[in-house]
Amino acid sequence: MKINVVESVLKANDAVARENRRRMDAAGVLAVNLMSAPGSGKTLLLEKTIPALAPDHRCAVLVGDLQTTRDAERLGGLATQVTQINTGTGCHLSATHVAQGLDSLDLQGVDFLFIENVGNMVCPAAFDLGEHRRAVLLSAPEGDDKVAKYPTLFQPADVILLTKLDLRGVLDYNRDRVYEDLSRINTRAPVIELSAKTGHGLERWFAWLRQERRQHSGGDSAPPRGRKDTAT
Amino acid sequence: MKINVVESVLKANDAVARENRRRMDAAGVLAVNLMSAPGSGKTLLLEKTIPALAPDHRCAVLVGDLQTTRDAERLGGLATQVTQINTGTGCHLSATHVAQGLDSLDLQGVDFLFIENVGNMVCPAAFDLGEHRRAVLLSAPEGDDKVAKYPTLFQPADVILLTKLDLRGVLDYNRDRVYEDLSRINTRAPVIELSAKTGHGLERWFAWLRQERRQHSGGDSAPPRGRKDTAT
Repeated sequence: MKINVVESVLKANDAVARENRRRMDAAGVLAVNLMSAPGSGKTLLLEKTIPALAPDHRCAVLVGDLQTTRDAERLGGLATQVTQINTGTGCHLSATHVAQGLDSLDLQGVDFLFIENVGNMVCPAAFDLGEHRRAVLLSAPEGDDKVAKYPTLFQPADVILLTKLDLRGVLDYNRDRVYEDLSRINTRAPVIELSAKTGHGLERWFAWLRQERRQHSGGDSAPPRGRKDTAT
Repeated sequence: MKINVVESVLKANDAVARENRRRMDAAGVLAVNLMSAPGSGKTLLLEKTIPALAPDHRCAVLVGDLQTTRDAERLGGLATQVTQINTGTGCHLSATHVAQGLDSLDLQGVDFLFIENVGNMVCPAAFDLGEHRRAVLLSAPEGDDKVAKYPTLFQPADVILLTKLDLRGVLDYNRDRVYEDLSRINTRAPVIELSAKTGHGLERWFAWLRQERRQHSGGDSAPPRGRKDTAT
């Protein structure tokens, strides 16, 4: 009974996600869904990423939080368009949230849409938003045991960002353990080690974004994300 | 429609939570539900807490995680009884999980039952497990903006633990901002600043636990947790 309800919610969500993806494809936008625990550094990463891409690419952002507009305020001066989505008590963004967000944006001329999901390592992973790529962040202070504990988040990731590595020296953090868990859960996604604070590793992340953007525009052959609607 | 489903799930949950509370009350157990983001230090805190309470108090633990038994293994040598609850894809513990956990424990002679919830700042807050107290952890590396972003977690907390404060010197972390947000969201719960790594502040946490234990045993008058079933 309970499972049926969840399935029907997910089915309704997927239909809206397909339409979101169609709208973004029509406008030539690559959408990247950023997911992680609260405080893994999603907003700071975007604060560094948007200006770095700016010479060649226009970025828009949808920011999901239960409450406050703090993240949107941080990003407001950097991206060409930023919309904050407040979910109230909702623990993840849904495709409907993103559809409403897309209504608030002018997608023409936008190259990247970053969707900063609600900080949560469980629920966001179950909801297709219509994004083209999923980026999952894991910060060093969260501990080296999180990949095995939250496999549903790491399994479908297209890129995995190990963040806040500047703190590694003062933490009991065993990087090998992260890679060992990833070797069982996701060997497809590149892993990028970085510190948004010091700048270490950011160039690899920017390069990955530019490459995915080229692939998405039809330059290379890329495995598209999504279920039945990505054959085009 | 969706809201009705959630309500009926919550109603069913609350009935089981009432029964859990009755069972624990009958055995003289004080149950403390620990909630936080992933990696805020719940397990390390318990690793320090259980031996410190051991001279006078026996502790049992229920540990919730999607997968793995890593936390239970860490705690296995310390508590008299430890049960790992794997939720699969479930983003929070429910009262039914805890009822199954209670079935696996011998509650006689247990003073504290610590329930380490799934690392998640949203969903666990909506589910009464039958606990008597709620302890919410917020680690310094998560950032000073989380109270305002996750009010549903902090609002019903009986104690708020600011953890990993040993890292404060190397972070951009403004403690005043946390207190300012708390002044709007929860002025009832004591706030304890600590570092489980250095030991700083742990005595205040232990003292709080001992005091709540005394109140619960009938020594002092305490505001009981729960909705309609806590008049006794």
